[in-house]
Amino acid sequence: MTIATETCEDLAIDAHRLWSDLMALADIGADSVGGVTRPALSPADRQARQFLVDRMRTAGLDVRIDAALNVIGTSATSHPVTQQRAIIGSHLDTVPGGGRFDGALGVICGLECARTLREHGVALPWNLEVISFCDEEGAHHAGTFGSRAMIGSLRSDEIHQEGEQGRPSFVRHLQQAGGDPAGIAGARRSADEFAFFLEVHIEQGRVLEAEAVDIGAVTAIAGIERVEVTVFGEAAHAGTTPMSMRQDALVAAAPLFTLLPQWAAEQNPEMVATIGRVALSPGAVNVVPGQCRFIVELRSRDAEDMRAVLERLEGHAAGTTGWRIEPVYRKPPAALSPRIQDSIQQAARQEGLSVRSLPSGAGHDAASFAPHVPSGMIFVPCRNGISHRPEESITRQQAANGCQVLLRTLLLLAQKARP
Amino acid sequence: MTIATETCEDLAIDAHRLWSDLMALADIGADSVGGVTRPALSPADRQARQFLVDRMRTAGLDVRIDAALNVIGTSATSHPVTQQRAIIGSHLDTVPGGGRFDGALGVICGLECARTLREHGVALPWNLEVISFCDEEGAHHAGTFGSRAMIGSLRSDEIHQEGEQGRPSFVRHLQQAGGDPAGIAGARRSADEFAFFLEVHIEQGRVLEAEAVDIGAVTAIAGIERVEVTVFGEAAHAGTTPMSMRQDALVAAAPLFTLLPQWAAEQNPEMVATIGRVALSPGAVNVVPGQCRFIVELRSRDAEDMRAVLERLEGHAAGTTGWRIEPVYRKPPAALSPRIQDSIQQAARQEGLSVRSLPSGAGHDAASFAPHVPSGMIFVPCRNGISHRPEESITRQQAANGCQVLLRTLLLLAQKARP
Repeated sequence: MTIATETCEDLAIDAHRLWSDLMALADIGADSVGGVTRPALSPADRQARQFLVDRMRTAGLDVRIDAALNVIGTSATSHPVTQQRAIIGSHLDTVPGGGRFDGALGVICGLECARTLREHGVALPWNLEVISFCDEEGAHHAGTFGSRAMIGSLRSDEIHQEGEQGRPSFVRHLQQAGGDPAGIAGARRSADEFAFFLEVHIEQGRVLEAEAVDIGAVTAIAGIERVEVTVFGEAAHAGTTPMSMRQDALVAAAPLFTLLPQWAAEQNPEMVATIGRVALSPGAVNVVPGQCRFIVELRSRDAEDMRAVLERLEGHAAGTTGWRIEPVYRKPPAALSPRIQDSIQQAARQEGLSVRSLPSGAGHDAASFAPHVPSGMIFVPCRNGISHRPEESITRQQAANGCQVLLRTLLLLAQKARP
Repeated sequence: MTIATETCEDLAIDAHRLWSDLMALADIGADSVGGVTRPALSPADRQARQFLVDRMRTAGLDVRIDAALNVIGTSATSHPVTQQRAIIGSHLDTVPGGGRFDGALGVICGLECARTLREHGVALPWNLEVISFCDEEGAHHAGTFGSRAMIGSLRSDEIHQEGEQGRPSFVRHLQQAGGDPAGIAGARRSADEFAFFLEVHIEQGRVLEAEAVDIGAVTAIAGIERVEVTVFGEAAHAGTTPMSMRQDALVAAAPLFTLLPQWAAEQNPEMVATIGRVALSPGAVNVVPGQCRFIVELRSRDAEDMRAVLERLEGHAAGTTGWRIEPVYRKPPAALSPRIQDSIQQAARQEGLSVRSLPSGAGHDAASFAPHVPSGMIFVPCRNGISHRPEESITRQQAANGCQVLLRTLLLLAQKARP
C-alpha cells in the first residue's frame, strides 16, 4: 500500500464514473422538467440513500446509517496516524423542484475520492468517512438537521417541533418510516473524533462564472441577521388628504431602500443586504399607506459587519418617530479553516486550475462542523448561478475539477499530517 | 305664497327635525359598532328608500322611483319661471361597514329644504326635485350608477357587466328584486331639464376641520389617473449574489417613492399623488426582488396637472431600462359652476359661517351632473376626516350648517333667476 506523499502527483479521479453516478442519482426523484424533487424522508430520498449504500459497499466501504439517518461510509486505513476521522460530507436531499447537483455533488465526490484512493492503494493518515447528511434543505426543520445532530448542536426542541406549513416533525416522520426517534441523540459524536471536514458544493451564485474561475476556496459561511422593520404613518383617503397633511409610511420608509445597499457596500464589499418583501397596510390603491413593513436581511462572514449596518439602521430610525425594528432571525457566521483554505488553493494550482477565495452566502453542512472542527469547502461554478431550480447545471468538467481538487486537498493535508 | 326674495332673510331649516331624520335613517342597516351597512339593492337599502318615500310624501312631495331605482321627490311650484328643475341630490347607500352621514346627509338636507320652503310657502322659480341616487358607492359597478343613468353617461355594457369580486350585475340584482332591467335606459333625462344640481356632503378629509372652517365651497371634483408601474430587475439568491452583481427591482424603484410626492407638490399644492400598494416578486425574504410592481394614483381638479406629473414619471422611467408604465384607470375632473360656488360662499357668509374653497378628492353624484348641468357642492367638516368607517361623525350643528347654507344658496340662486 502506498502512503500518501508527493509520489501521488498523478493520482486522478475517474471523471466518467463520477458523472455517471451523478446522473444515475439524478434519476431518483427526477421530475419532467429536468429537476429533482427529493425532500428528506420522502420515498425518493430513501431510494437515494439505498443507492449510496450500494455504491459505497461496492467500493469496499463499511456503511452504517445513524439514528439521524445520516449515511456513513468508512474507508479504513490499516495503520492510521490518529484515531481522528477525516470527513467528506454533503447531502442527497433536495428542495422540491430542485436541481441535480446541490448536495449530490459533494457526496458523490467524496465517494469517488474514497474509491480512487482505495483502487490505487493510497493510505491516508486517518480513517476516511464519506457522509450523506439527512435533511440539509430543511424539509422538516431549519435545515442541516443531520450534520447538527452529529456535531451536537441540534436543539432538542427542534427534533420534536412540527415543521413549517404543517409539515410533520422529523420525529413523526421517522416513526412513520419505522425509525427510532429516541435514538436521535445517539447520532451525536464528539468533535474530537474528527480531524477535519471537507465539502464540495456548487457555488449557487455567479461570482466564479462571471470571473471564469474554476475553483472557489470558501473563506467562511456567512451569518444571517434578519430584522423586521415597521414604519408607522397614518392611513388616510388618497383623494381627500392633501399632500401637506399626510404621514405616508411608504414615503417615510423609501429612503432606506436605497441607503441600505450603500451601507452594506461601504461596510464590506463581500457582505450583502436585501429587502425581499415589503407590505403596505391597508394596501389599497386609494389609501395613503399607514404602515410599511419589511424584512432587512444581512449576510456576512463577519458578525461585526452586520452589527455595524444594524447600528446605522437603528440610527436612521432614531432620527424620526414611528419606526420599530425587531430581530426575527440570527445565524452566526462560520469561519472555515485558513489552513484548509490554503490547501485548497494549493491543490487547485497543482491541478492547473484557477482559484479564488470567496465567502458562501448560502448555508451548508460545513457550517455545522466549522465552529467545532477545522472545515473547508470547495466551490465549483454553476451555470448563471442558478440553484434550487431544475435549471441548476454544471459541466462534467466542472464536476471533475471539484472532485480532483478535493482529492488533491486530501493528499496535501495528509502530507502535512505525517509526523 | 311668498316668492323667494330678500324678504326670506330669516328663513331657517329645522335643525332638530334634520338630525332626527338622520338618526332614524342611521338605524336602517345599523351594525353593532356604530356604523351602517346599506349597500345598494340590499334589504337595508330598500328599507331606506321606503323611509325616504314616506318622509317625502308626508312633506307633500310627489314621489316616483325611476327604472334605475333613483327616488325622486318633486316639490312643485305653481308658477315656475322655467320648466327646468332644480335638483338637490345625493345617495342613501353606504359601503359595507360605512358611516351614518356619507350620502345620507345630502338627501336629508334636500328633504329638509323642501319641507322648510313648503311650510313657509316660499315658491322657487323652478320645480324642486330632491333625489336619492342608486348605488353611488359602487356595490355593483364603478359607482354613481343612478346619477349616471339619469344624465345618460352610463355605458350600456356597465349595466349588464358582472360586478367585482363576483358581485352580480345591477341587472341581475334588479331582476331578482322584481325590477325591469330593460327599462334602465328610461331613467335617462335630457340635461336641458335641469336648471342646476346641488349636493351637500361631508368632506371626507381633514382640511375644513384642521382650519376650523364651517363650510367648503367645492371648486371641482378631482379627476383620477391610475397607472401600473412595473420595474424589472433580476431575481437572485440574497445570500450568494454580491451587491455589485445585483439588479434589485426595489432599489431601482425606490427613488420614485419619494420623488412622486415632490413632483405633485411642485405641480399644484391641491393635487395628490399616492402609491398605496407595492408588490415585490418573488417576494421572499432571501431573494433579491426581480420585479417591483405598484400603482401610482394621481388626483387633481385639473387634468393638466396629472398629465404633467405622468410626463415626469415617463421621463424618469425613460432614463433607465426595465420600466413599464400602463394606464389602468382614468376619470376626468369635473369642474363645478363658479356661479354656484359664489352663491355658496355668499350664503355661508350671510349665515355667519366661515367658508373656503376646496376641491373634492373623492367622487360624488355631482360629478355625474357637472359636465352637463351647472353643479355645486357644499362640504361640512367631519371628525378627523374619517369616512367609510363606523367612526364617521359630524355634529348636529355641522349638519344644520350644511342644510342652512343649502337653503340660503337656493334662495340666492332664486333671486338671480328672477327676471
